[in-house]
Amino acid sequence: MRLAVIAGDGIGPEVVTEGLKVLREVAPDVEPTHYDLGAMRWQRTDELLPDTVLDELRGHDAILLGAIGDPSVPPGILERGLLLRLRFELDHHVNLRPARLFDGVTSPLADPGPVDMLCVREGTEGPYVGNGGVLRKDTPQEVATEVSLNTAFGVERVVRYAFERAVTRPRKHLTLIHKTNVLTHAGGLWSRTVEEVSAEFPEVTVAYQHVDAASMFFITDPGRYDVIVTDNLFGDIVTDIAAAVTGGIGLAASGNLDVSGTNPSMFEPVHGSAPDIAGQGIADPTATVLSVGLLLEHLGRTEQARKVNAAVAFDLSTRSPQGPVRTTDVGDRLAALASG
Amino acid sequence: MRLAVIAGDGIGPEVVTEGLKVLREVAPDVEPTHYDLGAMRWQRTDELLPDTVLDELRGHDAILLGAIGDPSVPPGILERGLLLRLRFELDHHVNLRPARLFDGVTSPLADPGPVDMLCVREGTEGPYVGNGGVLRKDTPQEVATEVSLNTAFGVERVVRYAFERAVTRPRKHLTLIHKTNVLTHAGGLWSRTVEEVSAEFPEVTVAYQHVDAASMFFITDPGRYDVIVTDNLFGDIVTDIAAAVTGGIGLAASGNLDVSGTNPSMFEPVHGSAPDIAGQGIADPTATVLSVGLLLEHLGRTEQARKVNAAVAFDLSTRSPQGPVRTTDVGDRLAALASG
Ligand SMILES: CC(C)[C@H](C(=O)O)[C@@H](O)C(=O)O
Ligand SMILES: CC(C)[C@H](C(=O)O)[C@@H](O)C(=O)O
Repeated sequence: MRLAVIAGDGIGPEVVTEGLKVLREVAPDVEPTHYDLGAMRWQRTDELLPDTVLDELRGHDAILLGAIGDPSVPPGILERGLLLRLRFELDHHVNLRPARLFDGVTSPLADPGPVDMLCVREGTEGPYVGNGGVLRKDTPQEVATEVSLNTAFGVERVVRYAFERAVTRPRKHLTLIHKTNVLTHAGGLWSRTVEEVSAEFPEVTVAYQHVDAASMFFITDPGRYDVIVTDNLFGDIVTDIAAAVTGGIGLAASGNLDVSGTNPSMFEPVHGSAPDIAGQGIADPTATVLSVGLLLEHLGRTEQARKVNAAVAFDLSTRSPQGPVRTTDVGDRLAALASG
Repeated sequence: MRLAVIAGDGIGPEVVTEGLKVLREVAPDVEPTHYDLGAMRWQRTDELLPDTVLDELRGHDAILLGAIGDPSVPPGILERGLLLRLRFELDHHVNLRPARLFDGVTSPLADPGPVDMLCVREGTEGPYVGNGGVLRKDTPQEVATEVSLNTAFGVERVVRYAFERAVTRPRKHLTLIHKTNVLTHAGGLWSRTVEEVSAEFPEVTVAYQHVDAASMFFITDPGRYDVIVTDNLFGDIVTDIAAAVTGGIGLAASGNLDVSGTNPSMFEPVHGSAPDIAGQGIADPTATVLSVGLLLEHLGRTEQARKVNAAVAFDLSTRSPQGPVRTTDVGDRLAALASG
């Protein structure tokens, strides 16, 4: 397995080290190549993602990413120039974010009940395209725009993927989240696409919710959701709500998938570089390890993925609740469990 | 007080009746004029908001709105043609949404702590402008766009209002919520505006959070917020999260303010028309009564507003938790309490 590793900034390298530790236990054939990208490289060289590096990345089976971001860099530079550029150039149109409340994990909700949802967030369109601009900057007449682009091609492929996942799950339920009553242009495309594709999946029941209503139900009744499909921006928000109710961003894994297989998919914890705790060895690497689980699943290494996920589930069920975490301890424990 | 009343659809008329009951107790000089707008009128006459009606509305001191919406009407028709048209035509640039956890109210959070935030949502710009379109509809080449419009004029006035509110509150804290690392064009305008206006309010401390991070903190640590300022779409989402953690949409009040006073401001519960429970007399009118409180405050009737808010606070602190609600009982109790 040729694996490109972008450890990145802040706690990125710390959690990636543990992710690789666990990965090596279950997949001894992994050949990691490290790429130095992120805030430090940009500070040093002004480079974000050189084309030659992008080309090299394309030659791998998958990418493992830690975290990108540093307070010394103005907002948008690293996000648009590196993280989002990777997602867009590598056509990561499915941003996959499971949210499951593991046994032993404390939810901030008083009575969460069982939660096991799979958010399928579109990854290459919507308001994330960077379209828009600024006119008369820094004057009282300034106008700034952001354009959300949505194509039948882009919406259809992510909706189809969501149905394909839903049909394999026990509840076979899919919820579209959008804001069709206000964003009528894009909302119409999303609604019609879900309706059309649903005809091919008669076993899947379909629901629709406005993003504001869904944001409430994620809190008052998260157990009602099975698979969710939504656009890039709404997905950014609701997956963080889902992460919060299932124990926080320390456990939230994600995969940026090019489902066609043309480009390597990229796996990353949902959390950021957390500069406030970087270097202290107290970042929870669990989200990275779960992202490794998604990576293995994506590569069809089902048994290896099962081992990683089972290790995490067992570890969480026996961890002292909300106790302090030592990054390397968690990694050591998970590696030992996964190898067993 | 010349009050225009738009009871609207579903539970709208039920909750508005109780809101007026309470209002009459504290403000006997209220002269309500009822306007028949909403799904029924549209079904009957194809009319949403005739210009003559809009002109008449302008002649009032304030507007009380129940709820608009019915499943028989395609998404967007009533929202864009009536509710949002009112907000835009009457220049309701401040959408004010307090979220306070009242004593006696059960939060879905295990340990919410005290919550008392004031969300100031922009009301006349952003992705709500209806800008955008659809090309090659119903073909595999369909493209749909939504344009978020943000102007220095529009952002500055709502940011200024938020600072003006923050400076009068004990904590004097303001949080800007946006997504400046992705929506760099609009995000830049919002960030710079907050920075500029903050110079006039040196007592107010300012924080910034991305909308995804804020959506988590609303759940894990809602007590940290005081005043929030954000754009129209982010405001739609985070105010529903705030409503959820403070006991649900049955208690969430809102005011759509034209701060300049040129047009009447409009007050409405955040909840919708709830067709599933309409006609059963079980809708909680508390959000409408709290909206009446906001209305009185806006008209400078501070003592009348205090009575309404105190009635609600007392009633909530003595209500049987999560018990069933009878719409008229709640209204009767609140009217009696407010008059006392
Ligand atoms: C860092 C940022 C660009 C990114 C996003 O908005 O997608 C992050 O919030 C995420 O969810 O992965
Ligand atoms: C009904 C809808 C147009 C409206 C909005 O999105 O503003 C509602 O959700 C609200 O928050 O008042």
